[in-house]
Amino acid sequence: MIVEKLSHTTRTMKSSMIRELVASTRDIEGLISFAGGFPSPKTFPAEILKDLYSKVIRDEAAGVLQYGASEGDPVLKKQLIEWEGYDISASQMLVTAGSTNAIYYMTRALVDPGDVIICEAPTFLGSLVAFEATGAELHGIPLDQEGLDLNILHSKVDELQSQGKKVKMIYTIPDFHNPAGLTMSLARRKALIEYAIAMQIPILEDNPYSRLRFSGEALPTLYRLATQDYLNHEVVTEAVTFSKILGPGMRLAFVKGDEKLIERMCSWQQKVNIGPDNVSQRVAARFFEAGHMEPHLAKCCDFYRPYLQKMLEAMAKHLPSYIQYTKPEGGIFTWLRLPEDMNADQLFQQAIAKKVSFIPGSKFYPSNQVKYNALRLNFSFSTMEQIDEGMRSLGKLMEDFYA
Amino acid sequence: MIVEKLSHTTRTMKSSMIRELVASTRDIEGLISFAGGFPSPKTFPAEILKDLYSKVIRDEAAGVLQYGASEGDPVLKKQLIEWEGYDISASQMLVTAGSTNAIYYMTRALVDPGDVIICEAPTFLGSLVAFEATGAELHGIPLDQEGLDLNILHSKVDELQSQGKKVKMIYTIPDFHNPAGLTMSLARRKALIEYAIAMQIPILEDNPYSRLRFSGEALPTLYRLATQDYLNHEVVTEAVTFSKILGPGMRLAFVKGDEKLIERMCSWQQKVNIGPDNVSQRVAARFFEAGHMEPHLAKCCDFYRPYLQKMLEAMAKHLPSYIQYTKPEGGIFTWLRLPEDMNADQLFQQAIAKKVSFIPGSKFYPSNQVKYNALRLNFSFSTMEQIDEGMRSLGKLMEDFYA
Repeated sequence: MIVEKLSHTTRTMKSSMIRELVASTRDIEGLISFAGGFPSPKTFPAEILKDLYSKVIRDEAAGVLQYGASEGDPVLKKQLIEWEGYDISASQMLVTAGSTNAIYYMTRALVDPGDVIICEAPTFLGSLVAFEATGAELHGIPLDQEGLDLNILHSKVDELQSQGKKVKMIYTIPDFHNPAGLTMSLARRKALIEYAIAMQIPILEDNPYSRLRFSGEALPTLYRLATQDYLNHEVVTEAVTFSKILGPGMRLAFVKGDEKLIERMCSWQQKVNIGPDNVSQRVAARFFEAGHMEPHLAKCCDFYRPYLQKMLEAMAKHLPSYIQYTKPEGGIFTWLRLPEDMNADQLFQQAIAKKVSFIPGSKFYPSNQVKYNALRLNFSFSTMEQIDEGMRSLGKLMEDFYA
Repeated sequence: MIVEKLSHTTRTMKSSMIRELVASTRDIEGLISFAGGFPSPKTFPAEILKDLYSKVIRDEAAGVLQYGASEGDPVLKKQLIEWEGYDISASQMLVTAGSTNAIYYMTRALVDPGDVIICEAPTFLGSLVAFEATGAELHGIPLDQEGLDLNILHSKVDELQSQGKKVKMIYTIPDFHNPAGLTMSLARRKALIEYAIAMQIPILEDNPYSRLRFSGEALPTLYRLATQDYLNHEVVTEAVTFSKILGPGMRLAFVKGDEKLIERMCSWQQKVNIGPDNVSQRVAARFFEAGHMEPHLAKCCDFYRPYLQKMLEAMAKHLPSYIQYTKPEGGIFTWLRLPEDMNADQLFQQAIAKKVSFIPGSKFYPSNQVKYNALRLNFSFSTMEQIDEGMRSLGKLMEDFYA
């Protein structure tokens, strides 16, 4: 009975292949996994959180266990505004239950079935399936060394608009891109913003990793550039998650944008889950207030830096010279570009047999634009030995491919 | 720019008038509020939660701060199955971030724009706006003394189906109905289930209050009746929130139903917020495990019982004899039926001037079926003195109406 009653969107929607892929290999003993996007539990500030949770309930139970504002805990928002460090008002910010949640609300706020979302190709699969579930039509734009290829973007938007399609959003991950590990150049950021302002197309900037920079100099976010340099508060909406900073189990993120858009996203939040967990929101607020965030971030970067270093070394040492890869300065992923005739889905099967896993690149493309000659490697969850050993196995498989 | 880009659903969606109404009176000094649906903070088990949060982070940080299963924390689900006390499998249950969240996923799973949801009239406004946001067409069925009026239901469904409409769901709150305070009789429960099975229409049973029974005997939930007496696991889906039990700030609920439906709802959860807060889920699990739930529920009932008693006394004492009202044995609301010519929206304005608030009945009806001669009173948030004084003022206003 139920199956015949399912809605059209539900019957046709895709699941996140990554979760299924990670789940399918969960029971392989001794597996070296470069597949997931999990932060290392060693970076969780458990000692501090243990005390803060207890203190927040002890001192503020009547408030934090009660219904809270759908806009987000005002105590947390005050801290977040300070953290951002530039002029932004509480009505330009919404706290959500993770950035997937923020992305969902923004999509619901803007997209009718058949409307177009432009994304990068490759891009984060979790966002792709959330977009598709709203009935959006996705068009992926390739990346070059500086980020989203603007020439291709321009002609794609022209083409779509000449077909009468409504382009409702450009979705981008400018810092330590998932999966490509790439950081968008400053020039490209500016050009993208100028184009979006001229064309009146909202940008959704997904920013899970910019605070996890291990070396090099930080670039301003698109949101910051748009609001500070272009004095435009409408064109960019930025989602920042705490998943890679405090721990994804807390389900916390915040999103900044035009206050009329934020208001509508808040209406969706009210209807979908009332608001994020109040206890975790207040704990995050007290974490900031007590000055824990900056030293904690420094610790996280100190923790991850040698793993990235190790991964870069292992790639240089073990991969055939014709394999190209990104050399990120932060985040948790790197991306391998294989020769045209090497299929990462096939390689995945062989790698699993050797007890090494990764995510084949094909999982990161809109369904009509799939490419097979790339793969994503995560370096935040394995040991140093596993990184070396796993990359040795992968390199060997690649060499055998042409043997 | 953003306003022109909004999606159709977003431009047309309604907000929860109750939140706005409660917000609009927030700053009135000395206001006696029977308006909200807030549990009393005095019932929050803060002492226990304070230790559990700290213990869970201390002992289980690597697990609970990490990404969890979208299906819900297996440790919590195990406890919930035990709590329910009858045969149910983990795949028939989903943990969600509150019951609004569960209701949203069920609606998304079943309803295409234009499909019909049958609800009670009056019913919980939060669900109405969530239903409407999915493009559902709502039809309200009046309540009689035993609950949803089945004769009217039958002819309404016949009428809708003869128009070619798809009736996708019957939404009901059988225990301590919000706003009507009513509990559906056993005979009515059975007749409703039999009808729904015969007609193949899924029932969504919203159950926030059944554990808050202060006197009288509990009736089996629709879900329990359907699965145990009718051996039908498909027809009823039941949502149970912890908002009135542990505290709404934790944003926790669970939903039980057909495993194929639960799987689809879980896919929606994955796309919308990945899953509920893991820390709060595990804390709830340990709360059950340590045997705290039953004594805590007994305490909550002991706490609320005298407030209900006081409200019943105050209504008997202060209201004109022509005002009818429900005499619930639990929950947090009672419902006043006024004479046909008495408009509760007008009365609300007069009451606010006297520093008493409530929710006018008109807020609880689908937009095309609004009635004005009723109002909802909450008795879980005021002091004994406020209940007496507030009801005295209300009674006086009603008497003056005909003076």
